[in-house]
Amino acid sequence: MVEKSSDQHTGFSTDRINAFTDGVLAIVITILVLGIDLPEDHKFSEQGLASFLMRISRDVTMYAASFWLIGAYWVQHHAIFHFLKYCNRTLLWVNILFMFPLTLMPFLTKLKVVYHADLFVAPLFGSAFIVSGLILLGIWRYIVARPALTDRPIDPPVVRSMSRRIMIGPLVSLIAIGISYINTDLGTVVFCTLPLFYLSHRLVDYD
Amino acid sequence: MVEKSSDQHTGFSTDRINAFTDGVLAIVITILVLGIDLPEDHKFSEQGLASFLMRISRDVTMYAASFWLIGAYWVQHHAIFHFLKYCNRTLLWVNILFMFPLTLMPFLTKLKVVYHADLFVAPLFGSAFIVSGLILLGIWRYIVARPALTDRPIDPPVVRSMSRRIMIGPLVSLIAIGISYINTDLGTVVFCTLPLFYLSHRLVDYD
Amino acid sequence: MVEKSSDQHTGFSTDRINAFTDGVLAIVITILVLGIDLPEDHKFSEQGLASFLMRISRDVTMYAASFWLIGAYWVQHHAIFHFLKYCNRTLLWVNILFMFPLTLMPFLTKLKVVYHADLFVAPLFGSAFIVSGLILLGIWRYIVARPALTDRPIDPPVVRSMSRRIMIGPLVSLIAIGISYINTDLGTVVFCTLPLFYLSHRLVDYD
Amino acid sequence: MVEKSSDQHTGFSTDRINAFTDGVLAIVITILVLGIDLPEDHKFSEQGLASFLMRISRDVTMYAASFWLIGAYWVQHHAIFHFLKYCNRTLLWVNILFMFPLTLMPFLTKLKVVYHADLFVAPLFGSAFIVSGLILLGIWRYIVARPALTDRPIDPPVVRSMSRRIMIGPLVSLIAIGISYINTDLGTVVFCTLPLFYLSHRLVDYD
Repeated sequence: MVEKSSDQHTGFSTDRINAFTDGVLAIVITILVLGIDLPEDHKFSEQGLASFLMRISRDVTMYAASFWLIGAYWVQHHAIFHFLKYCNRTLLWVNILFMFPLTLMPFLTKLKVVYHADLFVAPLFGSAFIVSGLILLGIWRYIVARPALTDRPIDPPVVRSMSRRIMIGPLVSLIAIGISYINTDLGTVVFCTLPLFYLSHRLVDYD
Repeated sequence: MVEKSSDQHTGFSTDRINAFTDGVLAIVITILVLGIDLPEDHKFSEQGLASFLMRISRDVTMYAASFWLIGAYWVQHHAIFHFLKYCNRTLLWVNILFMFPLTLMPFLTKLKVVYHADLFVAPLFGSAFIVSGLILLGIWRYIVARPALTDRPIDPPVVRSMSRRIMIGPLVSLIAIGISYINTDLGTVVFCTLPLFYLSHRLVDYD
Repeated sequence: MVEKSSDQHTGFSTDRINAFTDGVLAIVITILVLGIDLPEDHKFSEQGLASFLMRISRDVTMYAASFWLIGAYWVQHHAIFHFLKYCNRTLLWVNILFMFPLTLMPFLTKLKVVYHADLFVAPLFGSAFIVSGLILLGIWRYIVARPALTDRPIDPPVVRSMSRRIMIGPLVSLIAIGISYINTDLGTVVFCTLPLFYLSHRLVDYD
Repeated sequence: MVEKSSDQHTGFSTDRINAFTDGVLAIVITILVLGIDLPEDHKFSEQGLASFLMRISRDVTMYAASFWLIGAYWVQHHAIFHFLKYCNRTLLWVNILFMFPLTLMPFLTKLKVVYHADLFVAPLFGSAFIVSGLILLGIWRYIVARPALTDRPIDPPVVRSMSRRIMIGPLVSLIAIGISYINTDLGTVVFCTLPLFYLSHRLVDYD
């Protein structure tokens, strides 16, 4: 059986690494909502819903921002792993490292809300996207250097274009951190421009 | 290899967009339960279970309503994506937008319970289903206009029938919001009729 | 293309109904743990870990019981859906109904702990497994009656054997509820015998 | 149809056991973050973010340790189930048992933080990895003894090497427990060396 022995020589199929990543990122993006402050139960607040929403507007805004940013990293992961036909234990591990900072987002998003005026909160929040982005770049370089994992070499223009694109995440995060020192809310706006750079990538998506 | 190059020209397979959506909606529908009020631990309430359940009856009812409504949107998503053979980055992003209002449901369901008599709570709750429904309609129009994504054109009667069906979600939500101004509980009942319109769809499901 | 048109006439593939069910049950079985009482943070209890564990022993025991019971229902679902090659919208919906009582388990398990001496708690806890079990029986009868969904008719001895097996869940739950009126802890033990009946099923699993 | 009848005689495909395990471990590894202490909402702590992070440093460290350890068990599960082509009900059940101690990790990690100086906390924490590791060894022996599940016998050197590797998890946990009696933090460090033994396994991964 040719197919089998070829599989045996190239390592694991990518089914489970994709399924595990989809699972982890789906959970992270969904449990963010548990961080939004809830009104105390069974006491109809004298202030009404409108003023309650006003009071938690920062929770909701940061929730939306983190949702949008994690979504961008999932899209990037999808675009990169689209090239992969086989994977190995190194990729399993580096992929787990890639997810680690992102699984901290429910915690970091909450800190960003509560400590919104603190000098350290934007670097802390942004470093998750910087670290994950750099690991993703490492994954891409690793895949590119091993044609056996992708069945055939990836075209050099695609390699360069994808590398540049992956770097946009960490770069925008760095800029957003810097701007947060001038104005916190403006910093959040800059963070939210990050996914705009991943909305399309015609060269990469269609090889 | 014909299959491969065709894949390369049509974009991504639909495996991961389906897996990610199934993951997110499975989590949303399951963590709703965390919003039901729990009795304080290790103090056997003097009032007994029956009166505790009575006290949280609104939690449980709204939990069931949201479960049922999110289920309907998953069924609709399934029916639409059934036609899709390939997907692209635009669809990845619009699909993330489609899920955004639904991931807010654990929060919105809780607000609907606590602020059940507030004028703004029904429009807020209902708008999640209106927005998600309209985005789903956008996804459908997008898919229909690109036969390369579905391998072959979808029959016009199927296109029209599906479009009308998708609009039922936002329309029923609008009516439910209106009726909530007359009677909150009746409004909730109207929300719960929404899935009834998605119980079967012979024309679409069998093409 | 024969395969395609046959797919179009038989409805949906079973990929997503299985993925959604696996997702929901994986989440339910995993978030049960969030119901175990935690010690108050950053105060080293004067009483020590051993006495804390003693105090929450009922939490841990009921956690294990619910884990084990939900596991049994997942195994049964797996065994039944193993026969299915195609599915339709009716099955999507009935499957959602099947999952509904099980998604309540994090809540019902907590009630079982806090109200362990209440007369209504065992019937409430057990009714989730009775209702889910009966819906599963309905799913099985529905599948059996539609050979197009399974590619070929299922052998009558397999049909009968599976039907009897599915009924064991509701029956054991009924008996456990009855025994709970005599002794609560003995009732829990009887609940925990339920999965024993699903440990093997040679006739069904190998057709 | 030869393929079908062969499937019918060998039991279930491995799709759902893998999907369920990926789901459960993805959730466990992701909801760990909910155990990190959050600052009280909407009160900007007088102490600032830096001192808050200092105060919860043990939460964050143990979070990272458990993330890393659960990741190692997922990688091991992946490597073992890579050999499996078919599965049966026994494997479904033993796999559920394998996951049980790991699903307790959000609870055990919290206990490890709060009761960090307690004599019983390291054995309790470590026993989860010992028990899961031993069950994994049982799964491996079970698979190895049934060539029908793997399509062909696994080479004896691979069998022996994998068995030894699986035992490293329980052994390192035992050593870490012992060292915890001398120094708690050193014990945690030893726990964290466990995944290092699973970073690569050239013999097994490529058969």
